[in-house]
Amino acid sequence: MKLATLKNDTRDGRLVVVSRDLTRCCEAGNIAPTLQAALDDWEQCAPKLEALYRDVEHQAVPCERFHENDAHSPLPRAYQWADGSAYINHVELVRKARGAEVPESFYHDPLMYQGGSDAFLGPRDDIPLGDPAWGCDMEGEVAVITDDVPMGASDADAADHIKLVMLCNDVSLRGLIPGELAKGFGFFQSKPPSAFSPVAVTPDELGDAWKDSVVHLPLQVDYNREPFGRANAGVDATFSLAQLVAHAAKTRPLCAGTIIGSGTVSNQDADGGPGKPVSEGGLGYSCIAEIRMIETINEGEAKTPFMRPGDTVKVQMLDADGHSIFGAIRQEVVAV
Amino acid sequence: MKLATLKNDTRDGRLVVVSRDLTRCCEAGNIAPTLQAALDDWEQCAPKLEALYRDVEHQAVPCERFHENDAHSPLPRAYQWADGSAYINHVELVRKARGAEVPESFYHDPLMYQGGSDAFLGPRDDIPLGDPAWGCDMEGEVAVITDDVPMGASDADAADHIKLVMLCNDVSLRGLIPGELAKGFGFFQSKPPSAFSPVAVTPDELGDAWKDSVVHLPLQVDYNREPFGRANAGVDATFSLAQLVAHAAKTRPLCAGTIIGSGTVSNQDADGGPGKPVSEGGLGYSCIAEIRMIETINEGEAKTPFMRPGDTVKVQMLDADGHSIFGAIRQEVVAV
Repeated sequence: MKLATLKNDTRDGRLVVVSRDLTRCCEAGNIAPTLQAALDDWEQCAPKLEALYRDVEHQAVPCERFHENDAHSPLPRAYQWADGSAYINHVELVRKARGAEVPESFYHDPLMYQGGSDAFLGPRDDIPLGDPAWGCDMEGEVAVITDDVPMGASDADAADHIKLVMLCNDVSLRGLIPGELAKGFGFFQSKPPSAFSPVAVTPDELGDAWKDSVVHLPLQVDYNREPFGRANAGVDATFSLAQLVAHAAKTRPLCAGTIIGSGTVSNQDADGGPGKPVSEGGLGYSCIAEIRMIETINEGEAKTPFMRPGDTVKVQMLDADGHSIFGAIRQEVVAV
Repeated sequence: MKLATLKNDTRDGRLVVVSRDLTRCCEAGNIAPTLQAALDDWEQCAPKLEALYRDVEHQAVPCERFHENDAHSPLPRAYQWADGSAYINHVELVRKARGAEVPESFYHDPLMYQGGSDAFLGPRDDIPLGDPAWGCDMEGEVAVITDDVPMGASDADAADHIKLVMLCNDVSLRGLIPGELAKGFGFFQSKPPSAFSPVAVTPDELGDAWKDSVVHLPLQVDYNREPFGRANAGVDATFSLAQLVAHAAKTRPLCAGTIIGSGTVSNQDADGGPGKPVSEGGLGYSCIAEIRMIETINEGEAKTPFMRPGDTVKVQMLDADGHSIFGAIRQEVVAV
């Protein structure tokens, strides 16, 4: 099934069930007022939401028109957002760009940071930027939402706790990262609010593209209305989303509504190289930091600037028939 | 006023107003069902809660007996928990213990990490520990809860957004920290759920002890029923709680219900030394890592082990008359 949260005058919006083709939706408030409420009681709510979804698909219930513009992130605020780094190609490039080594441990122990989850941006909300020198960047990612995950869950158990899948634009302030990481406590100011796709879907909606807790489809990232990234989320994933969930749960339980991200989706070239721009026939990049690194390697210096007011990013994923699965994140950077 | 969340069969408990002496409480559900709900609409709810508090103090409303054992952390789960390091003595000791330098930036730019906020422990809940080798430690801290803080708030503005004060036991797994910090993304598995005091209070409850957004009172930390730490939270605070809130809000707004911590309260000795145990007439320590460092300096090796199953910690703060302000965090480590 497909779920969305429509903006209203509350902080957490209202839950709707969305038709597979994203054209219609039906209020689900009589099952759960918000997505968090549904996740808090998923075992009870999920079958009822699935039944409503079948009715929506069969046009057996009155629906309203679904506009992606009206949607908030599926969880407008969450109790947890933790972002992994499943795609080592991204990590290698970004670390090279920072002059930092890839720690040996990365290859068997996932990188993960605790992100701010109190105030996500909506999928069509502007990205407020206080200072262009902060080096605003987008990061196109896949993210999952879990129900309650017990401490110490195995990878297999973790897979069963993945209830919903969505896309993410993990906004990063590259100019603040080196100083902040040098302090040793990880990201904080360098990770302002992220945005998620208008629609979250159950893994079964992905069909064969959901395999071993990895989404095997290209992630489309457009920058200023031009194709920028077409990396396949099913390729070069060192860790599955289930492995990232299990990593997060190693020393503590995870509350229902926990969001775990894949990190920036990134593919190597077919020849094992670090990747070429889409305009040169490559799969491109899901963030600007990567192309800057390629430019540094190839031309001696980074040429593509980070995002400035007026720049736009679009993130979406199409199924095998070319239909949008999650709706599109579409955001513009604005000065504040 | 004083507020608490009593455990019931819901994830977020039920909000009560507690008498100043912590003996009685009154259901506040007709004002707001939960503390988060009150914070979401603080301007409307706070005056009503204050009026109820006056009635509780005047015994003008029916009350029930307040048992600290029945309390959850004031916010059983929160949308944000970010912990600063206001007390440089602690940072210097812990970094020395890890063989790490104190970054120069620390003295003007607060250290802060994004903590997990999805599933706090209650103030009397056991601390589940998967493996004693993880090096379980307590950290006694002061923490504040804000309402909505706009991005870019000044220190003065941030002070006005501090609505409640409480105590914290920030549980740390010292054995996992070096490896995790070496990966560069900060704490994750090394910071399992924290616990907060049974009661959260408005700053005015602290009277003269609340000055410039710092609590000027000793924090009592007992370890295995013996005095372990008596450091004064008003001494050696490099940053105020308002400065920590402003730091958190530099690049993003903070949602109502954000919890910001002071970091481990830690005082130097009167002679500028790193501190002596309470048993030797010093102010002691609010965490075990500090005494281990002192032992390493003085005796060549750390002797006090980290917490093991059966070890207990108690954290509280008394007013000038010797009355408990926030109730006591009292926890025991248990093997899981």
